[in-house]
Amino acid sequence: MTQIATLSRRSGAPKGTGTSPSPLPTSKFVQTKAIRLYDKTSPLKLESGATLTHVSVAYETFGTLNDEGTNAILICHALTANAHAAGYNSPEDKSPGWWDGLIGPGRAFDTDKYFVVCPNILGSCYGTTGPASINPQTGRPYRMSFPTITVRDIVRVQKRLLDVLGVNRLATVSGSSLGGMQVLEWPLLYPDFCETIIPISTAAKQSAWCLALNAAARAAITSDPDWNNGNYTQQPAHGMALARMIGMISYRSPQEFTERFGREQKHPEAGYFDPANIFQIESYLRHHGEKLAERFDANTYLVLARAMDLHDVAYGRDTLLRTLGSIRARTLSIGISTDQRYHSAEQKEIARLISGARYAEIDSIHGHDAFLIEFEKIGRVISEFLG
Amino acid sequence: MTQIATLSRRSGAPKGTGTSPSPLPTSKFVQTKAIRLYDKTSPLKLESGATLTHVSVAYETFGTLNDEGTNAILICHALTANAHAAGYNSPEDKSPGWWDGLIGPGRAFDTDKYFVVCPNILGSCYGTTGPASINPQTGRPYRMSFPTITVRDIVRVQKRLLDVLGVNRLATVSGSSLGGMQVLEWPLLYPDFCETIIPISTAAKQSAWCLALNAAARAAITSDPDWNNGNYTQQPAHGMALARMIGMISYRSPQEFTERFGREQKHPEAGYFDPANIFQIESYLRHHGEKLAERFDANTYLVLARAMDLHDVAYGRDTLLRTLGSIRARTLSIGISTDQRYHSAEQKEIARLISGARYAEIDSIHGHDAFLIEFEKIGRVISEFLG
Repeated sequence: MTQIATLSRRSGAPKGTGTSPSPLPTSKFVQTKAIRLYDKTSPLKLESGATLTHVSVAYETFGTLNDEGTNAILICHALTANAHAAGYNSPEDKSPGWWDGLIGPGRAFDTDKYFVVCPNILGSCYGTTGPASINPQTGRPYRMSFPTITVRDIVRVQKRLLDVLGVNRLATVSGSSLGGMQVLEWPLLYPDFCETIIPISTAAKQSAWCLALNAAARAAITSDPDWNNGNYTQQPAHGMALARMIGMISYRSPQEFTERFGREQKHPEAGYFDPANIFQIESYLRHHGEKLAERFDANTYLVLARAMDLHDVAYGRDTLLRTLGSIRARTLSIGISTDQRYHSAEQKEIARLISGARYAEIDSIHGHDAFLIEFEKIGRVISEFLG
Repeated sequence: MTQIATLSRRSGAPKGTGTSPSPLPTSKFVQTKAIRLYDKTSPLKLESGATLTHVSVAYETFGTLNDEGTNAILICHALTANAHAAGYNSPEDKSPGWWDGLIGPGRAFDTDKYFVVCPNILGSCYGTTGPASINPQTGRPYRMSFPTITVRDIVRVQKRLLDVLGVNRLATVSGSSLGGMQVLEWPLLYPDFCETIIPISTAAKQSAWCLALNAAARAAITSDPDWNNGNYTQQPAHGMALARMIGMISYRSPQEFTERFGREQKHPEAGYFDPANIFQIESYLRHHGEKLAERFDANTYLVLARAMDLHDVAYGRDTLLRTLGSIRARTLSIGISTDQRYHSAEQKEIARLISGARYAEIDSIHGHDAFLIEFEKIGRVISEFLG
């Protein structure tokens, strides 16, 4: 079991409060904290023009912030993940946080050196304000009345959190997929705040291909009568499961499916032709579908998928060439050889358009999901880069 | 408008009936004919062990069969197509048959030289017996009581049709996708019947990747409450549309979506962030989804997708190597450079394992659907091959 430095009381409090920190308590469990960042007197103005009051953010931190507030790393999560990026929250946890292989003492994001922050993103359903949260103006959940949010909105909320935590500069910001979109927005919204950025299997703008995949996933949810225009009493489980099945296919690779499942059937005893004797790959997809339906909120999926679709770093700025060309943060762009969703050509293009950027390709059969699996390979190129 | 030689009366009748054919009538419209091939006294025994009585087949023919019955070409269609492979059925038709670009006088499948036959496949809903047909034993549609069928069953029914039409030998058999699976089964089931075969964008066995894509499409249909375990009164339109959306994504290529749609929105006047301002690619997918829901039967989709999943030329025979190695028909295997579904590596493997086979790769951005679009390129390699 991985031991992660526990959040210190000090790192969770704003800088400059003048309190002299007592010796830090240590524990092997990570706490997810929550903080109110916007309220009526200071609402969040969204890129669309709408506003949100009472925005809370759940987050986890690992390691200790230095006195200058300059050793911080921001970790940006993808569509259905959360703030729990590393370690264990409780003795009951069966597996550690989603990027535990990269975050910890001596790891790529070295918590002996860095203060690592992972917030649950705006619009999500894991502690940060989103469609499943109570709208203070009505006393009921926002549901589909939650406003359109964008990756830029997500990043602005992250910046507010970092300000409160006393972070003055990011040593790096990293994430994959929707997380990588946030990474690319960071040096554009806050040009002097990021020393380096590490976008992984993501795109400078959501491609037509990814728009298509999201369109199918959204249709799966909204076609489920249980979705009920967002006013469900229980999750539209069939629609969510199907959205996940569509997702899983594009998150993995043909090579991996062939190696893992081939044409193996689930009930060979029933005979080759029996309709109940489905193929193992179908069983695997159904299982992942059911799992997501149990742990994620349907309206949240719709809102965050739309944020991905609206992602285009050039939007409202300049050409893509000049927009990425304006980034001064030292950049490592990482692609996955078999990514079916964000093809490695897109990460190569990011590296080509950001001045002095490095490109590293991870050779993996795991497709887009390699960022959750290939910790050794990815960790090595990140360690070298941050070195 | 393409003029196709009309079916001659003679070519539609069994050989050797002794009637002296009168001069052939000509017309520019193609007729879809139907013929009863199996009945109670001569039922169709399926590979699964089940039997079907009263099997009818719809088919179209183009060109004239020679006296020896040796100038025939069999065209095998894919999942949702039909017997109408070329020409026009009526003056109202807006577009010709699905392979009109390849079938006709002077075309790759030259109707001046060849007698081209395209039957609607067993299990389909365009005139051949399938789940939407009346079960003579109950007087009601089969629906999900229709037995499991396989590509081999489909081919056996085609052979019976060719026998009745007086075809003694096939100059070639060609088709793509599920059609290509039939092509590969032909020389294995009837080793001396095919002089050549031309499988296009298909596989020797359905890959785990395609099993996954079909699993998602099936789940889309069966999750629609209107499907009602197959006992619908009207088509489960949402499920069918979604199955098609999933299909369309894999039938095309990222390159094509980028070139055709990019990030263009449908209602720019509504503003970038408006939820109603969907992207054009989403509108395109929905349109194709609705179109299929109007023209195809849901249970038929399930039955034929299952037949594709069960496709494995080696099943019950030998190793894949020895099974394909046993084929003596001269073979042209055609792959599409951007096929996301049946990757060109699979067609290369077919060519590698069939003795003396040629491989031709069509450079196209249209992905799997290139077989319905790139008539000039595909026609050229077929014409060369048939020489």
